[in-house]
Amino acid sequence: MSRKPLRIGLIGCGTVGSGVAKLLLEDRERIEQRTGRPIELVRIAVRRQDKPRPSFVPRSLLTTDLDRLLRDPEIHVVIELIGGIEPARQIIHTALSHGKDVVTANKAVLATFGTELFRTAREHGRVIAFEASVAGGIPIVSTLAQGLAANRILSIKAILNGTTNYILTQMTEAGWSYEQALAEAQKRGYAEADPTLDVDGSDSAHKLAILCRIAFGSALDWESIERRGIAHLPEADLRFAGELGYVVKLLAEAWWSDDQLAVHVEPTLIKKTDPLADVRGVYNAIHLVGDVVGETLLYGLGAGQMPTTSAVMADLIDLAVGRAQATFESLRLWEQGRPIRRRPAETVRSRFYLRVNVQDRPGVLAQVAGVLGRRQISIASVIQHEAFDDHEDIVVPVVIMTHSAPLAELRGALEEINRLACVASPSVYYPVAD
Amino acid sequence: MSRKPLRIGLIGCGTVGSGVAKLLLEDRERIEQRTGRPIELVRIAVRRQDKPRPSFVPRSLLTTDLDRLLRDPEIHVVIELIGGIEPARQIIHTALSHGKDVVTANKAVLATFGTELFRTAREHGRVIAFEASVAGGIPIVSTLAQGLAANRILSIKAILNGTTNYILTQMTEAGWSYEQALAEAQKRGYAEADPTLDVDGSDSAHKLAILCRIAFGSALDWESIERRGIAHLPEADLRFAGELGYVVKLLAEAWWSDDQLAVHVEPTLIKKTDPLADVRGVYNAIHLVGDVVGETLLYGLGAGQMPTTSAVMADLIDLAVGRAQATFESLRLWEQGRPIRRRPAETVRSRFYLRVNVQDRPGVLAQVAGVLGRRQISIASVIQHEAFDDHEDIVVPVVIMTHSAPLAELRGALEEINRLACVASPSVYYPVAD
Repeated sequence: MSRKPLRIGLIGCGTVGSGVAKLLLEDRERIEQRTGRPIELVRIAVRRQDKPRPSFVPRSLLTTDLDRLLRDPEIHVVIELIGGIEPARQIIHTALSHGKDVVTANKAVLATFGTELFRTAREHGRVIAFEASVAGGIPIVSTLAQGLAANRILSIKAILNGTTNYILTQMTEAGWSYEQALAEAQKRGYAEADPTLDVDGSDSAHKLAILCRIAFGSALDWESIERRGIAHLPEADLRFAGELGYVVKLLAEAWWSDDQLAVHVEPTLIKKTDPLADVRGVYNAIHLVGDVVGETLLYGLGAGQMPTTSAVMADLIDLAVGRAQATFESLRLWEQGRPIRRRPAETVRSRFYLRVNVQDRPGVLAQVAGVLGRRQISIASVIQHEAFDDHEDIVVPVVIMTHSAPLAELRGALEEINRLACVASPSVYYPVAD
Repeated sequence: MSRKPLRIGLIGCGTVGSGVAKLLLEDRERIEQRTGRPIELVRIAVRRQDKPRPSFVPRSLLTTDLDRLLRDPEIHVVIELIGGIEPARQIIHTALSHGKDVVTANKAVLATFGTELFRTAREHGRVIAFEASVAGGIPIVSTLAQGLAANRILSIKAILNGTTNYILTQMTEAGWSYEQALAEAQKRGYAEADPTLDVDGSDSAHKLAILCRIAFGSALDWESIERRGIAHLPEADLRFAGELGYVVKLLAEAWWSDDQLAVHVEPTLIKKTDPLADVRGVYNAIHLVGDVVGETLLYGLGAGQMPTTSAVMADLIDLAVGRAQATFESLRLWEQGRPIRRRPAETVRSRFYLRVNVQDRPGVLAQVAGVLGRRQISIASVIQHEAFDDHEDIVVPVVIMTHSAPLAELRGALEEINRLACVASPSVYYPVAD
């Protein structure tokens, strides 16, 4: 093993970038103990040299000449921490083609352009390490690639977005509205000014696509993942779920059923006794089932400066000792791999939570139940509270938990139900995790 | 990376051994996908060749000539799965000195003779891989050594023994006695005929000593770990803990306090809302705090044929691709390393649960509380139920939760309390986890 220093160029000195810089500059000794060789931060590319920086960032390391950094033969590894698609994609290509290994926390670019980026890496005999791109400090990439390498992964059930999990936790536990919880998340720095990618489920889908690549060894376009977010989720559904013994989480799931892979991101009811129900606030968790190991769960902080720094540093240490190279070569990630048979969303079976808003008149429940019955969807339980008032046109929510049914049947039934004269407004449904 | 087959000699064909054999023989293709090279099982050493074996074990691979296997130049890796100290210790030495890497699930031999075994490995340029020695299928060794490598670990709080966790779960949830729960654990194969090492806390201490080596980079003699087991734990204490909102778990803990490492294995009260409280039956879990990553928890099956097989296979795959070699060289495990300042058990501070069995007479609680007060141990809460009967000599349990106090003061107070005339039988105490 080489004892020569591994020299690092850092791109981006925002929240995570400055965390990585701090560790590389202040904890050299500790890191050298773990690697047997020094890891030296030699250059930090920033957009503006005169912006105020934390005191531990030496001005002498800063440069605005990104291109020179990417071509500097003295630099062995480029850490890309600017996020987003462009110019991140171009930066990674350039670094690889100039013989540098790349460490990135960028799930969007990997989920979208992983195939071409990994091809460039292989062409130049370089490595892309990306532990930080999924679930922050939780070492899920190495767990899938190494710790559980002997397993065929049967299912992934995960909370991968801390922002939405914080919002759902506050709505459930403090009774806040979606809007209140989002505003507080933004105030605390958990949500961006434009929270779209978090709340619409795209961020979770990016991460799930990356996990599927590692777990199932095949390409999976993140945009093909059936997804719904939590924007404007009604508080009432969280309350009814609670009465039934469930909490609602934005779950990213992938599982084999009849040799087809079902994949989706959905607000999902999970039992209060399920370990995932206890994942609160900005924490993330990933529940895996492997055919050899059985059930495993990993839990920790999924975002934030230091958790993400921990993952970036793990990749750097892996590169310094040669593990990352071995993993990259042996897994041949992001090659086309075996094609996976995807289960069409309509045929995915699940139990469902339904809320139908009906007029409080005799015979209404019979009509709703009749539609479900004709579609062979059987009812597991019903909640209908007494209306506070007995005006004739009062609207009451009827909450129904079904037994397992295909999504297409459920959707068909809901269309029919929504056309009933007694139904006052569109019904809602969420899947229920087993 | 080598594409040549990695040839394996397996020692022991019991529960785990036959699981490993099954995977190596039946899942060659899947393993080769993960490694880029074949892993071939070429020989299995057993004590008796004529014993009935699972049908997938080819008789042609079996041998009773252990020594020949250990010296066979065709074999690259020896998997030691016989457990216990001898002859496992000698087998590992012999394999290493004949140029073989070793994979082992043997916590007892590593916790006791790790220093000399790892020295032998280094002398011969070989590797000892031991993911399977702690917490079965949970990839805790690689998580500490790699995923969290950038962290200074601040604390480990773990359930590392499935047998005792099963017993405690049954006592708590089904109201069984210790003896009933142990008998059922033996019937189900979770406990050995002689369960001593499990129930007295030794097995947990073995595993904790191994985790401390990786986490803190220094030797720690497992026999020096303050420990108590769960043998004959009274059901009453589990019930009272439950009334107070706690469950009792056999916790293995190590944490820094004032630059000293406190380490113990104890039946410990943990809050029902703590994620570790939900670890039921034969599951294990490890809660870690790292200075960079914050809190992390790993959960899964800690023992059993297939979970342990998953860990052994992960080590084999790591060896096949060269990661295990990189880890072993960079971590320099089991070298003497920096000495660690251990916190003397007496000075470890904690909250405590006490049960004092007193005669139901006026002034008794005042006497007990007086002793605690003079020792500066303050009381957080008390439960004393009404006695069912009002005979003068009836004995009632008084349950006291204290605020934080040093163990020495607590023990001193209990000695005094036990000498009080009103105290009918020795008091018990357990620490309370924060």
